[in-house]
Amino acid sequence: MTAGVGTDRPVDLAFIAGRLRPYLAGLLTAEQAAWKERGAPWWDVPEALAVYTDGGKALRPRFCYWGHALSGKRAGAALLRACAALELLHAFALIHDDLMDGSGTRRGGPALHRRFAEEHRRHRWASDADAYGCATALLSGDFAFALANRLAGALPRRARDVWADIVEDLTIGQFLDLAGAARRDRSPGVARTTALLKSGRYTVTGPLRLGAAVAGSTELPPDLVRYGDLVGEAFQFRDDLLGVFGDPRRTGKPVGEDLRAGKPTLLIASAAVLLPPAKRPLLSRIGSSEVTGADIAELTDALDTCGVRDRVEFRITRNVRAACALARGSAAPSPVREALCAMASVAVGGRASDGGERRG
Amino acid sequence: MTAGVGTDRPVDLAFIAGRLRPYLAGLLTAEQAAWKERGAPWWDVPEALAVYTDGGKALRPRFCYWGHALSGKRAGAALLRACAALELLHAFALIHDDLMDGSGTRRGGPALHRRFAEEHRRHRWASDADAYGCATALLSGDFAFALANRLAGALPRRARDVWADIVEDLTIGQFLDLAGAARRDRSPGVARTTALLKSGRYTVTGPLRLGAAVAGSTELPPDLVRYGDLVGEAFQFRDDLLGVFGDPRRTGKPVGEDLRAGKPTLLIASAAVLLPPAKRPLLSRIGSSEVTGADIAELTDALDTCGVRDRVEFRITRNVRAACALARGSAAPSPVREALCAMASVAVGGRASDGGERRG
Repeated sequence: MTAGVGTDRPVDLAFIAGRLRPYLAGLLTAEQAAWKERGAPWWDVPEALAVYTDGGKALRPRFCYWGHALSGKRAGAALLRACAALELLHAFALIHDDLMDGSGTRRGGPALHRRFAEEHRRHRWASDADAYGCATALLSGDFAFALANRLAGALPRRARDVWADIVEDLTIGQFLDLAGAARRDRSPGVARTTALLKSGRYTVTGPLRLGAAVAGSTELPPDLVRYGDLVGEAFQFRDDLLGVFGDPRRTGKPVGEDLRAGKPTLLIASAAVLLPPAKRPLLSRIGSSEVTGADIAELTDALDTCGVRDRVEFRITRNVRAACALARGSAAPSPVREALCAMASVAVGGRASDGGERRG
Repeated sequence: MTAGVGTDRPVDLAFIAGRLRPYLAGLLTAEQAAWKERGAPWWDVPEALAVYTDGGKALRPRFCYWGHALSGKRAGAALLRACAALELLHAFALIHDDLMDGSGTRRGGPALHRRFAEEHRRHRWASDADAYGCATALLSGDFAFALANRLAGALPRRARDVWADIVEDLTIGQFLDLAGAARRDRSPGVARTTALLKSGRYTVTGPLRLGAAVAGSTELPPDLVRYGDLVGEAFQFRDDLLGVFGDPRRTGKPVGEDLRAGKPTLLIASAAVLLPPAKRPLLSRIGSSEVTGADIAELTDALDTCGVRDRVEFRITRNVRAACALARGSAAPSPVREALCAMASVAVGGRASDGGERRG
């Protein structure tokens, strides 16, 4: 039994720092060597990924770790591969997400496409720097995804099926995010499905299931599936709030981007019900080219004063409490129960302080 | 023994039309259903891929088919999966390639990002149509890649290793294409490595190896590896020529884009040696923002009159002849030897007439 909390350093964090980070670093160093061996005179892509995967909160590997710990088995090579695959998948998702949203900031610094564009300008290379930056970041995301799939391809059959679910949920969630904004969808149904797929399942339930499958379990118990979906929804609520009310110095992303783009978030779905009628026209202006900075400021203010913000905070607290109760009431080994309860809070709180990784 | 040529319809084409196309269509229809089941109210992405994978020359599955036929085994479910994975990988490569190159045309119609942008305009959806088009095409490429990897993940271990090589070669080739253009590299070394990776190995040798691995062979015989690299180089030479001298109505892509972007092609590497000194300054202007339509016309003309075009045509013919001799001299079953010899010509000729699939 490797699980345990309450020590100086939780065992999952020790696993991330002591084994996952070195494993990822070694993998990407080996990739640079593989590029050279194949005759490539430049290897900027694996080099960029090495920097990119060396930070963040590692929420997905942590949930994967605890899913595996349900079995009581020791953390071995297959778990390491699964966790590395999740981190590379997340690097891919963030890089492509920033391209899709035209978002220039990530983790408080320039997004990857901006970094490559800056390099292009610094060297005074040929043709358009921004186009080069976007193309190279696009390819870097593809490469991260390729590596993630290569690692996942070496997992046991059942884990590969869970992996396919995670990737599918992520893709559908991302598409609903784009399509909902374009179609000006403000329905709670689309917002909830989007949040469930790209946060609940991709961030919490999927990694838990993956860890369990790596350990040989056929399926996660229903109460822990429910736990994952509750934590995931709360995680998305927190993300929505940070996107509107967050401190950019702590989240690493500017505020207001989701509102400006008219993303189909849970926050906006709640606002469509709770905003006073006088403020509702603001909801139809967001996502259009006519939306102004004053509109965003007015809407931000209205979301606060009409109680949407408090209501969403309340739902986060309620979800975390319910999830914690489910974890504690589950048949999991005692240290895992406590760890899952703690992870519910980790996922929704203090997000900005330890790296911040807003998806928006 | 399923191999055989000289019948009314080559057996590989019968396999593509009779089994691969229906398999891909079924897969993408099932994906639309899976999206609906997960609560997605829209499924534009799998729908778009169904249209996208229903054409083209299927060169890669055909080479994979013949690699498998080396064993004399019957074409079964694993070969079908491998071929479908190659077609989806190619759809991914084309979709992202058009985004990276900012290329608006594919197979004579608008590229996928243009199609999605047009749909956005037609429905008068919110926010920027071009940004929506690019984001949705980016995600569609990701999804094609995800499906390709899912299929490849179910192949035998040895085939999965070959798959990883194919993906890695493609990625490195794509990066050298971008990086070589940015760095104004005109060296034959980079041009040859780029062509070897993204054409030779990705299009010919890799699929042959994949087919052989699916049939249980550990490695392709060295003469057939050499065959693949020769055909692949000739394929890239033809692609380079079509990109400069081709008829857009037949290739489905405008001419001059590679020159304008200063791509590190084999053609330009030859030109750097063969162009008369008076014309060489043109080579340093391409890829810069100052390049004019007159420069492109002058360079196109100079490539013809100074003999670069003829020389490249000569090398294509030489490569095809040498590849054919290698195939005929190999230990492969007789119908496979003849089919591989014929495929060398198929890969480099008549490319535009049956669908055209310029990568540039």
